[in-house]
Amino acid sequence: MAVITLLTDFGTADGYVAEMKGALVSGAPGTVVMDMSHDIPPQDIEAARLALARYWRRFPPGTVHIAVVDPGVGTERAALAVASGGQFLLGPDNGVLSPALFALDAEIVALPIPPSAAHTFHGRDVFAPAAASLAIGVPLLSLGETITRVVRKRTPEAHRRGDGSIVGEVITIDRFGNAVTNLVTRAGGSVLAGGYHMNIARTYSDVEDARPTAVIGSTGFVEIAVRNGHAANRLQLRRGDEVVLHKNSTPIE
Amino acid sequence: MAVITLLTDFGTADGYVAEMKGALVSGAPGTVVMDMSHDIPPQDIEAARLALARYWRRFPPGTVHIAVVDPGVGTERAALAVASGGQFLLGPDNGVLSPALFALDAEIVALPIPPSAAHTFHGRDVFAPAAASLAIGVPLLSLGETITRVVRKRTPEAHRRGDGSIVGEVITIDRFGNAVTNLVTRAGGSVLAGGYHMNIARTYSDVEDARPTAVIGSTGFVEIAVRNGHAANRLQLRRGDEVVLHKNSTPIE
Amino acid sequence: MAVITLLTDFGTADGYVAEMKGALVSGAPGTVVMDMSHDIPPQDIEAARLALARYWRRFPPGTVHIAVVDPGVGTERAALAVASGGQFLLGPDNGVLSPALFALDAEIVALPIPPSAAHTFHGRDVFAPAAASLAIGVPLLSLGETITRVVRKRTPEAHRRGDGSIVGEVITIDRFGNAVTNLVTRAGGSVLAGGYHMNIARTYSDVEDARPTAVIGSTGFVEIAVRNGHAANRLQLRRGDEVVLHKNSTPIE
Repeated sequence: MAVITLLTDFGTADGYVAEMKGALVSGAPGTVVMDMSHDIPPQDIEAARLALARYWRRFPPGTVHIAVVDPGVGTERAALAVASGGQFLLGPDNGVLSPALFALDAEIVALPIPPSAAHTFHGRDVFAPAAASLAIGVPLLSLGETITRVVRKRTPEAHRRGDGSIVGEVITIDRFGNAVTNLVTRAGGSVLAGGYHMNIARTYSDVEDARPTAVIGSTGFVEIAVRNGHAANRLQLRRGDEVVLHKNSTPIE
Repeated sequence: MAVITLLTDFGTADGYVAEMKGALVSGAPGTVVMDMSHDIPPQDIEAARLALARYWRRFPPGTVHIAVVDPGVGTERAALAVASGGQFLLGPDNGVLSPALFALDAEIVALPIPPSAAHTFHGRDVFAPAAASLAIGVPLLSLGETITRVVRKRTPEAHRRGDGSIVGEVITIDRFGNAVTNLVTRAGGSVLAGGYHMNIARTYSDVEDARPTAVIGSTGFVEIAVRNGHAANRLQLRRGDEVVLHKNSTPIE
Repeated sequence: MAVITLLTDFGTADGYVAEMKGALVSGAPGTVVMDMSHDIPPQDIEAARLALARYWRRFPPGTVHIAVVDPGVGTERAALAVASGGQFLLGPDNGVLSPALFALDAEIVALPIPPSAAHTFHGRDVFAPAAASLAIGVPLLSLGETITRVVRKRTPEAHRRGDGSIVGEVITIDRFGNAVTNLVTRAGGSVLAGGYHMNIARTYSDVEDARPTAVIGSTGFVEIAVRNGHAANRLQLRRGDEVVLHKNSTPIE
């Protein structure tokens, strides 16, 4: 019994997600539909891409992932169905599916838009029916024409400066106010963010309350955190803000 | 294996929905419980009615839909169980189930309130147990006494004026700030809302950023939208505000 | 097929919950994963404890409950797996699992933390894998070492004063603004909260709109409510505020 996962920026109160779920269980009876999130900020493709990057490979082979954050719905942008890494993914061609599009074995088709599809809701009328088809074993290549030129987005890369420091940036702020960066280190060091110097601690609780710290987050990137506080508010950090890593610095007392 | 869907205004953090889910899987082991929404604004029967109208017919025959937005819980208002269109629905007799109550084949029973039921939580003590019973095949008519006089609400209808224009209203604001109206048109035209004249575009992205537009939404009704913006805030539109449709107007440049 | 329930303070938009779900369905294929809530206020152990107390016993025997509100993640605090009342529970040793820890038959083990576990995300790397193991029948005692000294928290108890009145407090504010107290009464009476005297009514709707009232809530405790309003805002009530119950008072007119 296939699993279908759902990621949208629809919220739930309007019933849009509920309509998609109806289409899914009608099209693929017995399928397990799992909510990933419907609280992606409206039209925030980047937030959806980052969330999808975290979870898609953790599901069993054959899982069908739907990710619909789709400001261009109804335009010429393609509607994609993808097979990658043993999983299936569906979503608009705006970069949201990027984590699965870089694999050499990725197969990508453009789904036809039926004339009856609402121009404003391909989640219900295009992606959900195709996902149900994949869940019941319909081959990907029978769902549309293969395409190769699609939008692929990457997390921006940090770069090394002449003095050996590494310049990265905040890529997202999470619910706890932690500022996740694109900086990687195994060797400890210190970080400069929002005008504040911090050592890299082992976990949030290794510093006293209300003091900003850096930690290695759960995907391996450096995060800026405040124990029992909201680091992004405290240090006025936003997505895109510069964060500098000094790998071999003397610990700050 | 039956599907049970859940719509409430409970939020999830207090554990009320969790209690209902426990009652459902205990009463109907193996049942698939699917969240529709728990973010209906508190006590907003109309929002719940509109959401339910969108999704209930999209589920497979035999699905059991629970919709509990229930400001009158514990009073004399009846607790309903309904069979309509091959589906089952449960909720208070306050109009929330209206979409399923107009069908000629609708069968409606009033559920008895057991003395042990909490006066403030029929979702857990009345509707969930009855839903579990329906999910495992207990006949509707064995659950309560048939009743025929129930609260039925309709979306207000638009009306035609002498000059040929159609006067409707905003029936809901969705998460994206789109103002959904009760206006229907197949022929294009223009719309006046919040003091702003707009052509009816094909989809959100057919206009430039930040410019208000009208589109045909996914249930066939005219919606007022702002590309990458929040139309209701921009035009100060609220539920009930007048929107006028001119079907044969000259397009606005 | 076992049920696994999930309670966190993670929100859903960041993808953390989605990662846990991937770990669960990969580790225990066919398992039903049910969301209880991910909207617990960040790091509010007490809110999670109260929610868990409401629902955990309502699920079928063998259900696996995960509750992760974990400000001390990555520190020396133990990671617990518990068998109690025929159910399994997993979460940090900070009191969140208390409702299941008082039973005489409770068996408690401390889960080992694998070196590969992220110091900031035991939900994904410790609790989800252990939950999957329990769901597929791995014995609890094989998952870790038995421990007996764990953090157990109770709802504060109300106490009787010399004049016969009972002094309790607000233990939580729910989504509707109702202030749930730790006061119990079967005999009616009146309540003083936020400087306002109220009779105990049968249900919310037994008073007129906008008037504060007390009712017996769905777990048997006295709640302060305002019909179609927000009692906590109206009476400026917060968690911990004193509420006094007079069991044999003359009804207030």
